[in-house]
Amino acid sequence: MAHPVQTLVNGKISNKLSILDRGLHYGDGVFETIAVKDGKPQYLHDHLDRLMCGCRRLRIAAPQLHLLKADIETLCESSSVRTLLKIIVTRGQGGRGYRPNGAIQPTRIVTRYAWPTYSADYQTEGIAATVCTTRLSRNVKLAGIKHLNRLEQVLARGEWCDEYQEGLMLDTDGYILEGTMSNVFTVQGDTLLTPDLSQAGIAGIMRQKIMQCAARLSIPIAVCKKNLRDLENADGVFFCNSIIGIWPVRTLIDKPFARPRIIDVLMAELGLRK
Amino acid sequence: MAHPVQTLVNGKISNKLSILDRGLHYGDGVFETIAVKDGKPQYLHDHLDRLMCGCRRLRIAAPQLHLLKADIETLCESSSVRTLLKIIVTRGQGGRGYRPNGAIQPTRIVTRYAWPTYSADYQTEGIAATVCTTRLSRNVKLAGIKHLNRLEQVLARGEWCDEYQEGLMLDTDGYILEGTMSNVFTVQGDTLLTPDLSQAGIAGIMRQKIMQCAARLSIPIAVCKKNLRDLENADGVFFCNSIIGIWPVRTLIDKPFARPRIIDVLMAELGLRK
Repeated sequence: MAHPVQTLVNGKISNKLSILDRGLHYGDGVFETIAVKDGKPQYLHDHLDRLMCGCRRLRIAAPQLHLLKADIETLCESSSVRTLLKIIVTRGQGGRGYRPNGAIQPTRIVTRYAWPTYSADYQTEGIAATVCTTRLSRNVKLAGIKHLNRLEQVLARGEWCDEYQEGLMLDTDGYILEGTMSNVFTVQGDTLLTPDLSQAGIAGIMRQKIMQCAARLSIPIAVCKKNLRDLENADGVFFCNSIIGIWPVRTLIDKPFARPRIIDVLMAELGLRK
Repeated sequence: MAHPVQTLVNGKISNKLSILDRGLHYGDGVFETIAVKDGKPQYLHDHLDRLMCGCRRLRIAAPQLHLLKADIETLCESSSVRTLLKIIVTRGQGGRGYRPNGAIQPTRIVTRYAWPTYSADYQTEGIAATVCTTRLSRNVKLAGIKHLNRLEQVLARGEWCDEYQEGLMLDTDGYILEGTMSNVFTVQGDTLLTPDLSQAGIAGIMRQKIMQCAARLSIPIAVCKKNLRDLENADGVFFCNSIIGIWPVRTLIDKPFARPRIIDVLMAELGLRK
């Protein structure tokens, strides 16, 4: 088996980046994390779509799609049964100063990592989650984008060690937004609810897949603003992302949550059961 | 003369960084920009103090001060009359995932750049400034820290080309905060006012020096919240940072501003006249 961590920087095998890259200096870029099964990147089209959309919103010159796809193919060819790809696209090497230079070429970084080992219990039995004290700041210009400015997530994830599997993050106005590395849904009766991400947060691919799936199954779905008090009326809560799939919440801090049938229906429909 | 751009990464001459560095992945680090005159870094103690304070607040293991000082000395030794140092300290090389690993060593990156060429007129005649539409988000956990999550500044600086020399940024609540690369002061009668940075913004070293200088000269100074309408009552406005010193504002969008005598008093006192 090839070494689990291997990186292509602008198409060439490398483990180094220029010290002048704006990704380092300003977090001036976007990223994607993609599950690879049997050499096939999952939901690739959706991931690349979001990457391009992020570049457009940040006015980063988009990487050439055929080159990016060739990088992905190269790393998937030699991958084991299950691996993970992380794509980073930065604005490129700038000089000093915030001003973005329209003429520079974006930097493509594609890394293959070993598949993370999460207990199967997280899917079958559910997880213990906490509520983070670190809040997510609101800025409509950055909301939804999977960009490289992730200090809030780093601080939030630093609030606990192994006693929880995920932490719920609120925005600075106290509205529930997402997990540190995932999106969140609540189940209320027969309805699926998920936070509005127009002011902050990352619009995840798995979140999008769940919403599409719910629509297909005629499960009512609402995008809304809820605070922690509203959670008391929830019948169930789950986190999701492209790597973990769906993790139902067993407890949030000390409050236990049931596992409404709708969660298993979604997991089955999306092929997420191990 | 040595090449103007030279970098030490953890004490060794290099122009490359590990692709796994958390500075790239999450903007997980802090930085300083220091003016060097005749081989001597200006306000070095204050810059290092702020760097260490930023590390503490982000729970990044502080770099060993004697090593950092040795890096700075090495780059200053071979520097020309006027150069600029940028120090970046990141949390180090992590694996994948937001969770900060307490055991990793921070990465020290010290780069010497050529001194930027700004027209002397910006000091003597003042500058033309704009008001950016990109807002600064509010988060008390990050406010004041000179960290590497700088997409808001990049977007703001991308709003104009050469027609202005600086842009005023408001926070998402509409309060005046700072320039894209500087702090801001207004003069009202005999009083100096500067925005409160408890919710957002970078607490600059030159801002601190100006406040100390004002106190020494018995110039009344107030830290306060002001919006754009309040600016109509201002007698003068200026931007400041460690590199530009003080730039009085000649016009803000179309509104002309006078240059109250207090600005020249501060410039003289701080040795900022060219």
